[in-house]
Amino acid sequence: MNLENYIRDIQDFPKPGIVFKDITPLLLSPEGRNQCLQQLVAAGAKHPIDKVVGVESRGFFFGTLVADRLQAGFVPVRKPRKLPFQTLSESYALEYGTDSLEIHADAIQPGDRVLIHDDVLATGGTAAAVCRLVERLGGEVVLCSFLMELTFLNGRQQLDNRPIHAVMTY
Amino acid sequence: MNLENYIRDIQDFPKPGIVFKDITPLLLSPEGRNQCLQQLVAAGAKHPIDKVVGVESRGFFFGTLVADRLQAGFVPVRKPRKLPFQTLSESYALEYGTDSLEIHADAIQPGDRVLIHDDVLATGGTAAAVCRLVERLGGEVVLCSFLMELTFLNGRQQLDNRPIHAVMTY
Repeated sequence: MNLENYIRDIQDFPKPGIVFKDITPLLLSPEGRNQCLQQLVAAGAKHPIDKVVGVESRGFFFGTLVADRLQAGFVPVRKPRKLPFQTLSESYALEYGTDSLEIHADAIQPGDRVLIHDDVLATGGTAAAVCRLVERLGGEVVLCSFLMELTFLNGRQQLDNRPIHAVMTY
Repeated sequence: MNLENYIRDIQDFPKPGIVFKDITPLLLSPEGRNQCLQQLVAAGAKHPIDKVVGVESRGFFFGTLVADRLQAGFVPVRKPRKLPFQTLSESYALEYGTDSLEIHADAIQPGDRVLIHDDVLATGGTAAAVCRLVERLGGEVVLCSFLMELTFLNGRQQLDNRPIHAVMTY
C-alpha cells in the first residue's frame, strides 16, 4: 500500500499558488491510518518517550495515537488563549508577520524525553518554536516526527541537529 | 481510580464567571486516558460504527483514539475555512451571535453508522449542528459521545432522541 495515495492535493488552498496536502483521506481509512501509525511508532519506539507533544490542530490526530501506542503522556501545543492554565509562549515568523504557540507550564517536567509530532514539516518555524517550548521547560526533544516533509522548504535547517522522522517526503 | 481527579477546574476561563473543565491532566496520564477510552469504546462498541466524527479541536483527542479502537474511519468537523475540500456547513447559536462548523462533503456515505465525539456536552448547540451535518450527508447518528455532560445546561434537549453517552456528569 502506498501511503501517498491517501494524501489529496488541493490546488490554491489556503491561497492562490499553494498546493495543500489534505490528510483527511488518510484519517478516513483505518488501513492507511494503521500503516502510517505503525511507522510513526516504530520511529518513536527507538527511544524511551515520556511525553508526546501534538501541535494544533492537525498534529493532534496522530499525536494522540502515538502517545497511546507508546503509553506516554499527551501534551497539546495550542494557539494563543486556547490553553486555560498557566502557559509559556513562543513566537515564530510567518510569510508576513509572526504567530505564536503556547504550552501548559506544568506539561513537561525537567528531564522528560519528548517526541514532537505535527502533520507537515514545511519551513520548520512552527516545529522550532515547539522545540523551544519543550526545552525551556527542561524537556529533551528526542524526536521531531511528521507525516510529511516538504524537503524543498529546507525545514530541517531550522531544527538544527534535532532528530527528525517523516513518513512521507515531497 | 476516579476519572474526575484528572479534570481541573479553571475559574473565570475563557471569561469571568465561567468555570472551565480542563482535560489536559487527563491527556497527560496514560492510566486516566486508558480508563476513559475504555468507557468510550465500550459505549461505542454496542453498535456497528463506520465513522467516528470528532469536533474541533478537543473532540480530536479521544475521537481519533475511539476510531482507532473501533477500526472506523475518522472524520474531523472543523471551524469555517479550515477544511480544504468541498464542504457542508451548519450554523449554531452562541450566547451572542452565531458560529458555524464544516464537514467534508465526501466524508460520510449514505447509510454510514456514525459516532459523534466531543469533549463536553454543554448547551448542545454544537453537537446538534454536527448531527445535522452527518444526517444531511445520509449518515445515521448512532451515538453522541462526550467526556463530560454539564447536565444543568440541558444539552440533551437539543439532541432530541439521539442516543447520548457521557463518561462524567456535572
